[in-house]
Amino acid sequence: MLEHTLRERDEHMEEKLHKLKSLLARVHDLETAAGLLSWDQETYMPAGGAEARAEQVATLGRLAHEFFTSEEIGNLLVSLEPYARKLEYDSNDASLVRVTRRDYDRAIKLPSELVAEIARTGALARQVWKEAKETSNFSIFRPYLEKIVELCVQKAQALGYEDRIYDALLDEYEPGMKASRIEKIFADLKTELVSIVGAISVCEKPDDSFFHKEYGERAQWDFGIEVIKDFGFDLNHGRQDVSAHPFTTAFSIKDVRLTTRIQKDYLPSGLFSTLHECGHGLYQQGFDLSLERTPLAGGASLGVHESQSRLWENLIGRSRLFWNHYYPRLKEIFPTQLKGVSLEQFYQAINRVEPSLIRVEADEATYNLHIMLRFELENALLEGRVKVKDLPKVWNAKMEEYLHVVPPNDGQGVLQDIHWSQAYMGYFPTYSLGNLMSAQLFQCATQEIPSLPQQIGSGQFRDLLDWLQKNVHRHGRKLTMAELLQRITGKPLEAQSYLAYIREKYSDIYGDLS
Amino acid sequence: MLEHTLRERDEHMEEKLHKLKSLLARVHDLETAAGLLSWDQETYMPAGGAEARAEQVATLGRLAHEFFTSEEIGNLLVSLEPYARKLEYDSNDASLVRVTRRDYDRAIKLPSELVAEIARTGALARQVWKEAKETSNFSIFRPYLEKIVELCVQKAQALGYEDRIYDALLDEYEPGMKASRIEKIFADLKTELVSIVGAISVCEKPDDSFFHKEYGERAQWDFGIEVIKDFGFDLNHGRQDVSAHPFTTAFSIKDVRLTTRIQKDYLPSGLFSTLHECGHGLYQQGFDLSLERTPLAGGASLGVHESQSRLWENLIGRSRLFWNHYYPRLKEIFPTQLKGVSLEQFYQAINRVEPSLIRVEADEATYNLHIMLRFELENALLEGRVKVKDLPKVWNAKMEEYLHVVPPNDGQGVLQDIHWSQAYMGYFPTYSLGNLMSAQLFQCATQEIPSLPQQIGSGQFRDLLDWLQKNVHRHGRKLTMAELLQRITGKPLEAQSYLAYIREKYSDIYGDLS
Repeated sequence: MLEHTLRERDEHMEEKLHKLKSLLARVHDLETAAGLLSWDQETYMPAGGAEARAEQVATLGRLAHEFFTSEEIGNLLVSLEPYARKLEYDSNDASLVRVTRRDYDRAIKLPSELVAEIARTGALARQVWKEAKETSNFSIFRPYLEKIVELCVQKAQALGYEDRIYDALLDEYEPGMKASRIEKIFADLKTELVSIVGAISVCEKPDDSFFHKEYGERAQWDFGIEVIKDFGFDLNHGRQDVSAHPFTTAFSIKDVRLTTRIQKDYLPSGLFSTLHECGHGLYQQGFDLSLERTPLAGGASLGVHESQSRLWENLIGRSRLFWNHYYPRLKEIFPTQLKGVSLEQFYQAINRVEPSLIRVEADEATYNLHIMLRFELENALLEGRVKVKDLPKVWNAKMEEYLHVVPPNDGQGVLQDIHWSQAYMGYFPTYSLGNLMSAQLFQCATQEIPSLPQQIGSGQFRDLLDWLQKNVHRHGRKLTMAELLQRITGKPLEAQSYLAYIREKYSDIYGDLS
Repeated sequence: MLEHTLRERDEHMEEKLHKLKSLLARVHDLETAAGLLSWDQETYMPAGGAEARAEQVATLGRLAHEFFTSEEIGNLLVSLEPYARKLEYDSNDASLVRVTRRDYDRAIKLPSELVAEIARTGALARQVWKEAKETSNFSIFRPYLEKIVELCVQKAQALGYEDRIYDALLDEYEPGMKASRIEKIFADLKTELVSIVGAISVCEKPDDSFFHKEYGERAQWDFGIEVIKDFGFDLNHGRQDVSAHPFTTAFSIKDVRLTTRIQKDYLPSGLFSTLHECGHGLYQQGFDLSLERTPLAGGASLGVHESQSRLWENLIGRSRLFWNHYYPRLKEIFPTQLKGVSLEQFYQAINRVEPSLIRVEADEATYNLHIMLRFELENALLEGRVKVKDLPKVWNAKMEEYLHVVPPNDGQGVLQDIHWSQAYMGYFPTYSLGNLMSAQLFQCATQEIPSLPQQIGSGQFRDLLDWLQKNVHRHGRKLTMAELLQRITGKPLEAQSYLAYIREKYSDIYGDLS
């Protein structure tokens, strides 16, 4: 009798689960449609379309938010939670209920109008940012950024926080992470990185002048496509286009869009953008197909996402093993430009350490210093310690302090990144967290796939991709960064693997760095 | 006292009007977002994205329909109608209420689920149609088309009709038009066209073999862009891309998207597709900006839309005056391919009359016969007189009867057009109605702009575009085809202007055709 009742109750739960999934699928459709609106805005939309696009994005964002925060979903979660807790932790259904609860509790704190206002302001600001960046004119972007900081503060206040205002925003991108913990990790990283960069600074720099010759855009594009196909990116379920700031987005596990930007007179820019975004794309293509049209079909966090892009861009794409295989091919494509440049010279040039202006083109040793700067400025803006109008000045001062270089104009300084124009604050530190995670994962993969070095050295990536798919990708948002790392490596996130990787790599190039 | 009350009531009406507009703007945003989803599917989407895209399109379509058919909008219309009738007929507000009422009465008859099912089936079928067309394999498309016919019948039954089932569907594309009236117009047209085509058939055909040389795709593209810029198409508020079947769509008056297709070995295909779609695009860019984000920001009907595309493609783009100016430029771009081809030979070749397989490449004399065939087949499918499985056979038989040519495969036959895959039935006859209207409009423009021939002969189109903008474009959906024609020409739609144009043009090329 009791068993009968339980079964009945489970059937009832299946019904509720089905209802929840269909409501969430509708939200997912609105969100992926909004994703396409944004993708189009960055890739193909004529400038005149910005105003209407802002309205469209705002309408879809508001509807998705309204539907998601409906009482109906709240009630379904309440009824389903006891049932879901009896299921296996990482089963689709248990994870769906658990992750939806986390999202829901966040979302109901945000008024629809604020969400729409942020979306609308972001869409408009992005268009102005483009022009501001191109013309190095901070003043036209300033009022938009002021509005965005104000909206971010409103958002953080609506969400609430215990310790720091930053935590409220950060949690969206890296669930469970806190500003104070990042400060601690960054402090450790900074000491070691500064010592490494200091040691390298007295060494002779590898010559990389050949990167600045003219490299045909079409040929660069084609080589990039060749490599990402070898990595395993599936062009029947994705594509690559051009945008001012490379990004990856997806409208389905089977429709993943990469963008890149090619510079005719600087080879590494397009090349490593392509490999980087491909890492994101492989993650998006790797979610278990049963997660399609659910909130679980996404990256566990931005940090985990970045661990994938960095792994393919740096641990693979800037390794000597990789270029053992690909350098002859690259020389075939650019025989004049690379004439007389040996594999070793090329390898050293792509790993040249030098404080520079642009984050996305920074080497692995200085990259995290760019992040620390942004992280500190965001905290200062949100806490009111720095005003937007003073931002270019403060940016330049910090660049000098951290990297001993000062941007000649705001286009190469405070305006270089798209993120703030999209109202993404609290996002930047996830880049560094991803760097750390990438090293931890790669160390583990290397132990578990003994022939991995030989495979990389012959352009074979199937085993690595399978390993990542099995351990990271397929789970989508089911597990957090901490849960993934614990399962895979038995350890929490830590800086030591990354620092060991950096120290070993650069000692090999520059000699003893201790 | 009474005046005071009236003013109060008007203020109350302003409020209701504002509410109506904001509800309609939300619907408009959903519809334009869905428009982008479809545009992307035709231009850039990887094949794997089709399934998810179908769901997204269905969700947006369903929501737009649900919101539009809400009781709230119905009640607002009821309260606003007496007020709107006091306003000037073609004022924004009176037109908004009147046109929304027409749309609303139609839409409430359609169940949301049917609308979503049609959208979903259309998105899936479109993908299958592409493959079926490429591989000339009707059998893979057949079950989709069967489903589509069934859905169209359901739709017509839900909408209701007095005389013919066709009328219910036709009314969506050409408000107020009836199948029986089209049959009458087509009967007139057919007699005259058959006589003209018959007279031409005994004449010597102009040589057009030079069209089949190799014409670089990039150069074709660039020439097309040059011409449409001269026409006045604004590339800051629009763009052109490539798709299998050329089309025009818009997500804003300031974001109008044309597509074209270029054939390396057949010059006229890309060239006239580009001019044709540009005609649609100029219409979309010409709506009064005050109509943005309202249901009035659209073409009056598909027939009126087609009158614009045909005017630019044929009455301008296939005229001797136009090529007086542009032929030297085209020869500059393709000197080898057009060597020894005189302006007169070129002009005659682009106006060569010959029964052929592909509608979009048909000449102006035979084009309408392609339409009559489709119109008859659609009627037969909807009335159950022809089954989908027999369609290729019936298509081929009719092609033989009307045009004395038989498609060698279904790719060049029944599968050539995208329309049915998108569940557009009742759409085709508007192409012919547009042809007729284009001639009526052009005749009138020529009378009102005395120097028009000289202007066209020197690549100047500003006055013509202004005339069209003032008389047709700016009104958007405010006025029907009949209302526009009455205002502009003082006459209803009639075949005589078109037949006179055809007779004059081809007599000039082929000699006396009476």
